Amino acid sequence: MKQQPVIGILMGSDSDYEVMVEAAKVLNSFDVPFEMIVSSAHRSPQRTADYASTAAKRGIQALIIGAGAAAHLAGVVASETTLPIIGVPIDSSALQGMDALLATVQMPGGIPVATMAIGKAGAKNAGIFAVQMLALSDEGLAQKLVASRQQMAQGVADKSDKLQQRLAADGLS
Amino acid sequence: MKQQPVIGILMGSDSDYEVMVEAAKVLNSFDVPFEMIVSSAHRSPQRTADYASTAAKRGIQALIIGAGAAAHLAGVVASETTLPIIGVPIDSSALQGMDALLATVQMPGGIPVATMAIGKAGAKNAGIFAVQMLALSDEGLAQKLVASRQQMAQGVADKSDKLQQRLAADGLS
Amino acid sequence: MKQQPVIGILMGSDSDYEVMVEAAKVLNSFDVPFEMIVSSAHRSPQRTADYASTAAKRGIQALIIGAGAAAHLAGVVASETTLPIIGVPIDSSALQGMDALLATVQMPGGIPVATMAIGKAGAKNAGIFAVQMLALSDEGLAQKLVASRQQMAQGVADKSDKLQQRLAADGLS
Amino acid sequence: MKQQPVIGILMGSDSDYEVMVEAAKVLNSFDVPFEMIVSSAHRSPQRTADYASTAAKRGIQALIIGAGAAAHLAGVVASETTLPIIGVPIDSSALQGMDALLATVQMPGGIPVATMAIGKAGAKNAGIFAVQMLALSDEGLAQKLVASRQQMAQGVADKSDKLQQRLAADGLS
Amino acid sequence: MKQQPVIGILMGSDSDYEVMVEAAKVLNSFDVPFEMIVSSAHRSPQRTADYASTAAKRGIQALIIGAGAAAHLAGVVASETTLPIIGVPIDSSALQGMDALLATVQMPGGIPVATMAIGKAGAKNAGIFAVQMLALSDEGLAQKLVASRQQMAQGVADKSDKLQQRLAADGLS
Amino acid sequence: MKQQPVIGILMGSDSDYEVMVEAAKVLNSFDVPFEMIVSSAHRSPQRTADYASTAAKRGIQALIIGAGAAAHLAGVVASETTLPIIGVPIDSSALQGMDALLATVQMPGGIPVATMAIGKAGAKNAGIFAVQMLALSDEGLAQKLVASRQQMAQGVADKSDKLQQRLAADGLS
Amino acid sequence: MKQQPVIGILMGSDSDYEVMVEAAKVLNSFDVPFEMIVSSAHRSPQRTADYASTAAKRGIQALIIGAGAAAHLAGVVASETTLPIIGVPIDSSALQGMDALLATVQMPGGIPVATMAIGKAGAKNAGIFAVQMLALSDEGLAQKLVASRQQMAQGVADKSDKLQQRLAADGLS
Amino acid sequence: MKQQPVIGILMGSDSDYEVMVEAAKVLNSFDVPFEMIVSSAHRSPQRTADYASTAAKRGIQALIIGAGAAAHLAGVVASETTLPIIGVPIDSSALQGMDALLATVQMPGGIPVATMAIGKAGAKNAGIFAVQMLALSDEGLAQKLVASRQQMAQGVADKSDKLQQRLAADGLS
Repeated sequence: MKQQPVIGILMGSDSDYEVMVEAAKVLNSFDVPFEMIVSSAHRSPQRTADYASTAAKRGIQALIIGAGAAAHLAGVVASETTLPIIGVPIDSSALQGMDALLATVQMPGGIPVATMAIGKAGAKNAGIFAVQMLALSDEGLAQKLVASRQQMAQGVADKSDKLQQRLAADGLS
Repeated sequence: MKQQPVIGILMGSDSDYEVMVEAAKVLNSFDVPFEMIVSSAHRSPQRTADYASTAAKRGIQALIIGAGAAAHLAGVVASETTLPIIGVPIDSSALQGMDALLATVQMPGGIPVATMAIGKAGAKNAGIFAVQMLALSDEGLAQKLVASRQQMAQGVADKSDKLQQRLAADGLS
Repeated sequence: MKQQPVIGILMGSDSDYEVMVEAAKVLNSFDVPFEMIVSSAHRSPQRTADYASTAAKRGIQALIIGAGAAAHLAGVVASETTLPIIGVPIDSSALQGMDALLATVQMPGGIPVATMAIGKAGAKNAGIFAVQMLALSDEGLAQKLVASRQQMAQGVADKSDKLQQRLAADGLS
Repeated sequence: MKQQPVIGILMGSDSDYEVMVEAAKVLNSFDVPFEMIVSSAHRSPQRTADYASTAAKRGIQALIIGAGAAAHLAGVVASETTLPIIGVPIDSSALQGMDALLATVQMPGGIPVATMAIGKAGAKNAGIFAVQMLALSDEGLAQKLVASRQQMAQGVADKSDKLQQRLAADGLS
Repeated sequence: MKQQPVIGILMGSDSDYEVMVEAAKVLNSFDVPFEMIVSSAHRSPQRTADYASTAAKRGIQALIIGAGAAAHLAGVVASETTLPIIGVPIDSSALQGMDALLATVQMPGGIPVATMAIGKAGAKNAGIFAVQMLALSDEGLAQKLVASRQQMAQGVADKSDKLQQRLAADGLS
Repeated sequence: MKQQPVIGILMGSDSDYEVMVEAAKVLNSFDVPFEMIVSSAHRSPQRTADYASTAAKRGIQALIIGAGAAAHLAGVVASETTLPIIGVPIDSSALQGMDALLATVQMPGGIPVATMAIGKAGAKNAGIFAVQMLALSDEGLAQKLVASRQQMAQGVADKSDKLQQRLAADGLS
Repeated sequence: MKQQPVIGILMGSDSDYEVMVEAAKVLNSFDVPFEMIVSSAHRSPQRTADYASTAAKRGIQALIIGAGAAAHLAGVVASETTLPIIGVPIDSSALQGMDALLATVQMPGGIPVATMAIGKAGAKNAGIFAVQMLALSDEGLAQKLVASRQQMAQGVADKSDKLQQRLAADGLS
Repeated sequence: MKQQPVIGILMGSDSDYEVMVEAAKVLNSFDVPFEMIVSSAHRSPQRTADYASTAAKRGIQALIIGAGAAAHLAGVVASETTLPIIGVPIDSSALQGMDALLATVQMPGGIPVATMAIGKAGAKNAGIFAVQMLALSDEGLAQKLVASRQQMAQGVADKSDKLQQRLAADGLS
């Protein structure tokens, strides 16, 4: 039986899926149950407000929210709940995500949105950050995070080793 | 007796008053009745949604909305009404209003916000633009607008004349 | 017989057609008659001034104007008429539309241009905003706008439902 | 007796105090014990690494980190701990905090920094966000957050009422 | 008797005088007769078009044009004459002249505006550039330009000499 | 026999040819003889200084100079001659020509560079601007410029006519 | 037998190889022995600190460091050694390297990073700059640098000659 | 007797002194003899070329070069010598040093300029970087650099201690 989701992933348009699935993959790899829905700050404001204002009661502990252009979605959701909100700016306009970044991060004092990097790196990190928050009261998750870091560091060393072959192939070693 | 307001001026913080009063002055000079209130997209979302969703019924024909930083207010109001929304980005963060501009103007397809320049020039023009909309069905206003343009042009010519004195004073004529 | 146009769509170059047709599609979907012409602020100034200064007399109620780079066209037209002017910045230079955005939106006090987002989203919203203005004195249009909003919201919910299939296909649900 | 701190506030230079004290004020108002220290990513790397790597063991649950210019401090601390890291970009160079914002928020996939707005608004929100995280396992804090939101909303309404007096004083009502 | 002006200096607002007078000073120092007027692209379009379209007939050989914000003035004038147009972006909005720079320099193919630096340096250089153009058919001016360059170079050497005193005063030599 | 060139087109790298040829095409169409060479401000400083300092003696009347990235070439040439220098910023780095634009246009007071738009539009306009300067003392060129403007205006009207067919094809007329 | 490396090339990710190999090619062409490794500021902080703090003892004289996005790597390494650090910002995020540039160059007073251009040009120049430093105590290298400059200048002249053929082919000479 | 200078500090204008003196102070504190002169890339090109091309022969080992706006000076000097060039962008135009930064750092492949941060931090770091280069062949300087780092780290700890008093004074400890 599927577990009750503790993280909600929200995006303003289904065209944001390719980016936001990076957050889902992280949560899945840590066995953190989540839900993923589409709701627009502007085109479906009631749906968004309903989702945000009921999230805590349904057991959601944090929301990961991706949006592009004048990215209001994270801020709008943040205004309807006191759960931690993690924002992911998405590069979906002519301005390469700079508009989404500023519209997400420059929240006025009172209503925070924890903003990640533009695009896939940001979505992945949103997932990790959500796990970090949950790990504050879940020792198992905390240990998995430490193990994940060790794997990252090992992965870097491995890639460095392989790089020597490229150097050699290019006649540079 | 005070007239029923037809334009609503909304701002996210009372610190925006100094900018937004420029819109009020224009409406006043055209004898267009208006109301001016403070409501935050994030700190008072219910108040904002209530104001926006009831504006049309109360006889409001357009809303002029000023906000700074991650300026979501105009977009949030636009999501709650089909009245024309005029946005004024306000320079109230470290980024000189660029954040407010992008957060106001880069609205996704479906929910427009008619964006004006950053700051006082934008607030003044928001007032004029509101009058231009009302003038579509008010011949008196239309004539006042034409007269106002003629005054502007005359004002430019007058200033050009006075400039000659400054040139002379600087020994350059 | 074709109806008398009430909205004029103007663009600085025929290469802007692909963007500006989004405004035309919206007007068409609301049965709002429009005309669409090419005229450059710089290469055909007389044609532009003639078009702008006669628009009101010919029954035009608002102008939607797209231009790229140093996008002067909306401002130039605004200087020749008191009709509401809606500007659409177009991304047609190396600077991704930032030049067109600033040249359109940063109008000095006195002559407003209601600026939309860069590119297709902006052109679409320009069409919707024009309909919102016309709806102030056309109850039928006002009702269509409300219906359109409901369709948008339903569309968001539908896309959210379909997203669950992608999640499942990716082994994430 | 002073309580054991659960939040650490770190800044790269004592000249950042004026900004970062906003986070301290928030934590203080929620009775959340904290510590505040200066440590530079670049000038005192060992001190920074020691502080970061021992924070969890000392009972710290999250770190709020402010830095300006090439603001590496939050990222550097994040690399030494799996605790949630909240970054506050500070406007302390010629570039108005844009450098600090990008250096804080654009973290590569793997090591998240939850970034807040540039400057005082960001520092205040960092404090609130830390409380939101702690409130996930502290019902008392959760209730205080809800009460705080209600006070914010009431504050907005109060300021709107007072604005009417300014309008009247300016002869605009 | 005052000489017939050969250069016209145009500005969009009398508040631009402080910047544009730098161009006048240069022309004056080279004994090049000029005129200086205020005319707005937007607030006095007819005045602007009249001035631009009659300039060549009145003996004007080049126009120096300063404007801020959405600085259309140089482009608008350029569309009405084939005289060389020199544009000076003025820093008069929240965006520090970046808007004026892009609105002046990013002219579409067909209608050039020779753009100078933002502000006083640009106005000064506009004056020099006008003299350079006139010097193509005026050997006296050409010789004065060469002499002016030699004076500049000498001025640099003189300032370098004086700098040694500041170094000594600061105990650094 | 080939005429003595009166305009020099200079570029920092042969990879700039595709852009700078637009200037050559304009000059060719006006029968203005020109020369085109490659010389780098940094990789061949002596060649650049020699070319610049001898240009006037060889009958060159203006120089059109294209460069990308930290585009110093126009400024360096300007420092070696009092001929009018026209700069064309080229988009050849990651920053889309913004670096080239600022490095070309922001010249300090004393040494002007008349800057055109980034890329092909700028190169084309550099050619036209050079013709405009030459036309100050060449009535034939002046008349050709006027005729060229009329052709441009007619071209706009023609394209507007053709646009109606696209509208019809899209079912929008 | 392979020589002891005197320059270390470090990159944050193996995906940076294509850029950073440009530095390796330069060093190779000057017969300067180097090593190239991958180590992340954030994912492998201990590896990075170990590498940096032992570099001087192992005979490394300068480090060339490439990273993208919030590019902390050069600064982090600089904090662990007093060797000269050369930073290469890499364009690997949505923001075209502007984030990497600012995160690399805007180092606070005390810990310098010598920053090169974004991308391949920067990596190539990092290699040349390292050679320039080594040449301060290696007359052979100094002479090779001078010869390399002469070759560059000759290469420019050669390309200019070839350009004449393209002009002729385009019917422009 | 004054020692023979080994570092040259060059600035484009004496108004840059206040920034560039930071480099002088660092060199002075390390007992590194230096000279400081003013020479402009544009206003005194011959003086600049002479200074640059003779620097190596006079015993100069590296040049620290500050300039603002279209900051060509470092690149121009770099084109005349193979000595290491350290560039300091100076914030002296409307664009806050962004123009100087890009004009300094974005050097094309072949001619490197080692760029530091905008303004005083950059000038200070230029001095330190010059010392780091000299220390490669001067063990005494190398030891002083290590000692300086230790002092920096101690300074940070001291400031952190003092910060506790401010916290207490603000009632936050």
